[in-house]
Amino acid sequence: MREVAIIGIGQTPVGEHWEKSIREIAGEAVLAALNDARRDSVEGLYVGNMMSGIISQQENLGALIADWVGLKNIEAVKVEAACGSGAAALRIAINAIASGAMEAVIAMGVEKMTENKSSEITAALATAADADFESAQGLSFVSLNALIMQRYLYEYGWKHTDFAPFSINAHANAVHNPNARLREPISLKDYQEARMISAPINLLDASPIGDGAAALVLVPADSLHGEKIISIVGSAIATDTVAVHDRPDPLWLTAAEKSCKKAYSMAGIDADDIDVFELHDAFSIMSALSLEACGFAERGKGPYLALEGEISPKGSIPISTLGGLKGRGHPVGATGIYQVVEVVQQLRGEAGETQVDGARIGMAQNIGGSGANIITHILKVK
Amino acid sequence: MREVAIIGIGQTPVGEHWEKSIREIAGEAVLAALNDARRDSVEGLYVGNMMSGIISQQENLGALIADWVGLKNIEAVKVEAACGSGAAALRIAINAIASGAMEAVIAMGVEKMTENKSSEITAALATAADADFESAQGLSFVSLNALIMQRYLYEYGWKHTDFAPFSINAHANAVHNPNARLREPISLKDYQEARMISAPINLLDASPIGDGAAALVLVPADSLHGEKIISIVGSAIATDTVAVHDRPDPLWLTAAEKSCKKAYSMAGIDADDIDVFELHDAFSIMSALSLEACGFAERGKGPYLALEGEISPKGSIPISTLGGLKGRGHPVGATGIYQVVEVVQQLRGEAGETQVDGARIGMAQNIGGSGANIITHILKVK
Repeated sequence: MREVAIIGIGQTPVGEHWEKSIREIAGEAVLAALNDARRDSVEGLYVGNMMSGIISQQENLGALIADWVGLKNIEAVKVEAACGSGAAALRIAINAIASGAMEAVIAMGVEKMTENKSSEITAALATAADADFESAQGLSFVSLNALIMQRYLYEYGWKHTDFAPFSINAHANAVHNPNARLREPISLKDYQEARMISAPINLLDASPIGDGAAALVLVPADSLHGEKIISIVGSAIATDTVAVHDRPDPLWLTAAEKSCKKAYSMAGIDADDIDVFELHDAFSIMSALSLEACGFAERGKGPYLALEGEISPKGSIPISTLGGLKGRGHPVGATGIYQVVEVVQQLRGEAGETQVDGARIGMAQNIGGSGANIITHILKVK
Repeated sequence: MREVAIIGIGQTPVGEHWEKSIREIAGEAVLAALNDARRDSVEGLYVGNMMSGIISQQENLGALIADWVGLKNIEAVKVEAACGSGAAALRIAINAIASGAMEAVIAMGVEKMTENKSSEITAALATAADADFESAQGLSFVSLNALIMQRYLYEYGWKHTDFAPFSINAHANAVHNPNARLREPISLKDYQEARMISAPINLLDASPIGDGAAALVLVPADSLHGEKIISIVGSAIATDTVAVHDRPDPLWLTAAEKSCKKAYSMAGIDADDIDVFELHDAFSIMSALSLEACGFAERGKGPYLALEGEISPKGSIPISTLGGLKGRGHPVGATGIYQVVEVVQQLRGEAGETQVDGARIGMAQNIGGSGANIITHILKVK
């Protein structure tokens, strides 16, 4: 299997881009990535997107974006795995090169969400849950995560305020990221006093939606020469039941554990080797569960890492280093690609104020649904 | 690049399955394909689907279906390329095996469309067109194809009635397919007197929508021994502008020509070698355009093949042999997989009354949008 390297990254700021259509946002990221890679063209384009059909009345995004950026007649499709769509598109793009079918492709993610009424967005996000057995009961995506967090507090004896350091760290890091949506630090007091959304999840536990796009240019690693080649050494998707109530233990992300273990095995490493971890902090509870499932903390003990400062850029397992979903923002189908773009920034030493010293191995993990579809990628500087 | 073989096929009848949810329809096809392949499991599931988010308020279909059929924790994602979603999922699935990442996967397609109001389905289908520059002008998907057909009649001097043999052939073949939606023969008079939908497209030019699912089990060809191994020897996607008015010639399917030529080249064959061709006859005009772009007829002369009987199972280039989109029905995201299932039936000699004698090489071509995304697969018995 041919190893795949990342030679170009591109991203738009996450925000409210009402003046741009979805193809324009996507095009900006693709052209930035091509420019970064010093290339004019690729053979394939794999677009992670969740809700363009519902929100923008536009499917067929692959062909639409390829045409818009002048990548005439290339192979181009959309890949969907709810909020994990971005990383799923990357996983698919890797196989296109690893199989020998193509020599250069783009994996990207795009989402446009801020022009609609919030009730429409809530309904669109709920399509990530089980329509027949969760959404039909009136459960929104936030309330599903609230049930998980409530159970976690009860089961392991944590207080809500113990989750504050996850959000404080994310915001502190986002301040320095020009592409982040929420570039404002928050205090413990801000967190404790934030407006309740769906108890116990308050406004500062939840990541903001946004419009945005991010893109990666991929080529076979053996086509490159020189130093500082960034290779994808692990790539795996694992799934779980879509309905949370169907899982034996709703507090354990089985799909995260499985996709992680597979990625570690492909890379020949374990959790201790990871220098930076861009995890899927859509809600603060998800940070704790991800750290546990991926081997960084024992079951029920994820919040310790945050309370002890280990998740900061200077800590033992830096997370959300450019803001994470909480601070950079969560344009759902694009998020998985933003995460990988940020890992590349870290491995290149281009992460600015929140650079993790000597980062050589980074991991990105993107989650679709409440743990239903979990995609892990491990990148290494060679 | 490892060659990929098809060892199992499954399909539900195309129809109105109001008593079943989308996961149930999908599950039937997957389990039938696994049963046909005599396997219990696979490592990956790639689901072609266009409109489940809009129609069933359900995304994350990969995880949903994998869980429903008991394929616990496997890699599973949805692939979307409008009405070409099914074949796009197959293209992605092939790479998963060709890359060496997996040893057995399922490519499937599913769509559930008949429970909604027709205005909702018309709106959902319009997401295959350009939302900003076509749909926003009030163009439905049928009316876009009507413009193309009208131009074709004008440009090449054909009469509407000259397209009758395409629909008559499709219906005649569908009669013998137990999975077809419209198992009734039609006459020339029926065609000429059919109700107008969007001039010049009448009811018998247009394929019916439907609920349905189809699935394929894929493994590396070199893992098989014995005779009658059905290999995928060509696989290619090409794209074009989504908006028809952006094309220099709206009567030429550039993406069909490009994906076909690539597939022919991979297979080391040309059009003359094709024994059976399951093309995308969503509208009768599309049959003519596909035959021309793929090298079976000269530009503007596609209808001759139909008028001269060459498209019947006994003709020189049999099309729609199990009914095609027109007769079997068009559950959009599933159609591309139905086409390949039917080519396998032909190559196995299991096509019944409409068996093409001695079929050894078959082609399936699936179209997303009005020619925006065209996916070609060539299968060969070895």
